Amino acid sequence: MSESERPRVEPRTLKGFRDFTPEVMIAKEAMVDTIRAVLRSFGFVPIDTPALEYAEILLGKAGGESDKQVYRFTDQGGRDVALRFDLTVPFARFAAQHVRTLGVPFKRYHMGPVWRGENTARGRFREFWQCDFDTIGTRSPIADLETALVIDHLLVALGITRFQIRFSDRAVLGGLLDELGLAGQATPILRSLDKLDKLGPETVRRELEREGGVPAAAVEAIFAFAAETGDPEEVLGRLRRRFAAHAGAQAGIERLAAVVAGLSAVGVPAQRYRLDLGLARGLDYYTGTIFETVLDDEPEVGSICSGGRYDNLASLYTRDQLPGVGASLGLDRLLDSLQRLGLSTNRGATAQVLVAVLEPARWLEYLRMAEEIRGQGIPAELYLEERRLDRQLQYANRKGIPLVVIAGEEEFATGTVAVKDLRTGEQESGVPRPELAGAVARALKGK
Amino acid sequence: MSESERPRVEPRTLKGFRDFTPEVMIAKEAMVDTIRAVLRSFGFVPIDTPALEYAEILLGKAGGESDKQVYRFTDQGGRDVALRFDLTVPFARFAAQHVRTLGVPFKRYHMGPVWRGENTARGRFREFWQCDFDTIGTRSPIADLETALVIDHLLVALGITRFQIRFSDRAVLGGLLDELGLAGQATPILRSLDKLDKLGPETVRRELEREGGVPAAAVEAIFAFAAETGDPEEVLGRLRRRFAAHAGAQAGIERLAAVVAGLSAVGVPAQRYRLDLGLARGLDYYTGTIFETVLDDEPEVGSICSGGRYDNLASLYTRDQLPGVGASLGLDRLLDSLQRLGLSTNRGATAQVLVAVLEPARWLEYLRMAEEIRGQGIPAELYLEERRLDRQLQYANRKGIPLVVIAGEEEFATGTVAVKDLRTGEQESGVPRPELAGAVARALKGK
Repeated sequence: MSESERPRVEPRTLKGFRDFTPEVMIAKEAMVDTIRAVLRSFGFVPIDTPALEYAEILLGKAGGESDKQVYRFTDQGGRDVALRFDLTVPFARFAAQHVRTLGVPFKRYHMGPVWRGENTARGRFREFWQCDFDTIGTRSPIADLETALVIDHLLVALGITRFQIRFSDRAVLGGLLDELGLAGQATPILRSLDKLDKLGPETVRRELEREGGVPAAAVEAIFAFAAETGDPEEVLGRLRRRFAAHAGAQAGIERLAAVVAGLSAVGVPAQRYRLDLGLARGLDYYTGTIFETVLDDEPEVGSICSGGRYDNLASLYTRDQLPGVGASLGLDRLLDSLQRLGLSTNRGATAQVLVAVLEPARWLEYLRMAEEIRGQGIPAELYLEERRLDRQLQYANRKGIPLVVIAGEEEFATGTVAVKDLRTGEQESGVPRPELAGAVARALKGK
Repeated sequence: MSESERPRVEPRTLKGFRDFTPEVMIAKEAMVDTIRAVLRSFGFVPIDTPALEYAEILLGKAGGESDKQVYRFTDQGGRDVALRFDLTVPFARFAAQHVRTLGVPFKRYHMGPVWRGENTARGRFREFWQCDFDTIGTRSPIADLETALVIDHLLVALGITRFQIRFSDRAVLGGLLDELGLAGQATPILRSLDKLDKLGPETVRRELEREGGVPAAAVEAIFAFAAETGDPEEVLGRLRRRFAAHAGAQAGIERLAAVVAGLSAVGVPAQRYRLDLGLARGLDYYTGTIFETVLDDEPEVGSICSGGRYDNLASLYTRDQLPGVGASLGLDRLLDSLQRLGLSTNRGATAQVLVAVLEPARWLEYLRMAEEIRGQGIPAELYLEERRLDRQLQYANRKGIPLVVIAGEEEFATGTVAVKDLRTGEQESGVPRPELAGAVARALKGK
């Protein structure tokens, strides 16, 4: 069978999965590095967990409704296994196993891919990277404030300044529902309220009244509560008086007060955060502070960093009570936003110098040049093919390499090299060969 | 149902899978950063591909023998899918799809997890990280030399200097087999030869003679060839004469000569590389240079970086001929070696300063101190719980945080702070509050 008749497989990725080409991947690595530096600057340390876990670890004994989205199968050993669909559940399992050894408070970050068989019609991917950071083993409201402050630092470090961190507290909402005699319906009410921005008050009102059986007066009270605005200190003062007799709500109000006081004390501009009592978050899991973060210039993207406080991280796996607070960034979604906003960067990721090869027989000389430049800490690539110089310059241009070192017959005869700057078109000729690395370093500094 | 009676799931990972605690993960991040910097310094750029692919992409239309080790299942949409078991096959598929846009020569690196249902009895993991780097679209022997040079730079950058890169060339071995009239049996002969180090000559001789039907005289000729030693230039000279009429072998000899000349020209110490004609590598895939790398102090680990040259990377997916050369590092195995050799590092990964909290009511003051220190680019953590100072110092010690900022009633009264260095036990007291960040920076520099 000849080569051209050989049966081939069509090269393609699964629906909802994608390749990252160098251009995107360089920007992603830069983004991940920036995020990591910020998290480390607050004392968060990294962990990792397996992509694949026992299905009962990820889904509980019952399986449950998220099942349809989960990549779940039987492995070669007959085990019921699944790919992780978030980084929270694996962290809960991790904490149950390791937290006694690691001690509390324990502050960790975790970045990696998760998998969900989502409906791709809405532009969703089935494999995407998340970055979670959590502080567990403490009930201190300072941890809640730090979560908001980290979000602020993260976005500023990525070059974003036009955003708003919105926060509320489930325990304060709990005080309201107790007041209205609706404590037993908290979950469906919060789920409806979470859709207020998206669906508008009329739809949510109908959902609450008809499906939830919430009395019309109570719906009005919930809407009025959600619409509370004004100076955060004044809002907090009204809440303190209103829920004076409700211990849970008081604890929530003190957490919110810590967030407001802390952000203000370190000088975060007031337009970058907002106490938003209409915030609900869909998940049952949260019991205290809840956070969302919206980019001013990309509101349609929704929240790019969300989180909150929980009473008990790992109750599925251990009797140890593990309260904590944390948030999650959708890294791929954030990268897309950075690219649209012109903020993604590929600084320093590719070689800074191409050593062109004009006299292939002298390749060891070109190799030594590249090594000398690398020896100065400057990434330098040696051109590999035998091609005309203009093709080599094209290659450098396409890869975004700013400098090209050129040495032909004449240069070798005179013991010199030329350094061409593709950004300006300027060329420094007659550089004595021993001064090559210095000349390259100077040219890069834009001297 | 009370909390203590709630049914729980035992927290555990799947056999062959593992968690990374911060101590190990910090070292892994440092190792990955170092490797990435070296690869970039040669002009390699990053890519990423999905964890999950169509099974026919990863295994070919037939499936084949590697099947048993592959995590393969039917997804929610009825697709036959599998988790990638290496980074080479996804790169071949990637190249077939993208290389026309990206252009050649194309130099990429790719780091990430792969999954194999290996026998865990031999200490193998079923999820492990690989790092591949390849140069495709060129037949230049300089690319082969660069592959060896990159391996040398990588290990030196990681702190390892006692190692040996061993290399040979399949085309030269092909010349020998042609000479012996055994060209048709190349695959089983190379597989047997690959086991020479592990099983010894007697076992391999038996395997070649009895199972392979190789005549005794030919076995002796193969063994004599594999045992060729001496100055690389002399060995290359003998090979040039011996295979003067064999074009394929000559091309292989010129690649080997380029590797030897290049490593020597840039001053890689002679004990760090060796032309080893006994090298075979098990894979059919290689057609030219082959590489292995062994640590002098951990020979039992086997090769920690292996690779080679191939004629046609992506023949399963495209008619485009894509020759190239590359190598693969087993990152988790390498990390284990670095830790055993005392070379793993967690420099700069955790906070450098703990701001202790002695007067909880003044938490905004402590928060400002932490922010000021972070503002100088120094990671600083704020202690979150209300505990005695000795407990806070213990926390810093356990996390490896060298400095603790201490401010109690007296310090607040005098407008000062104290900076305690846990490495020396020394404490600088009476630091004026506005000079805190400067004092911390000085203490970290060990002044």
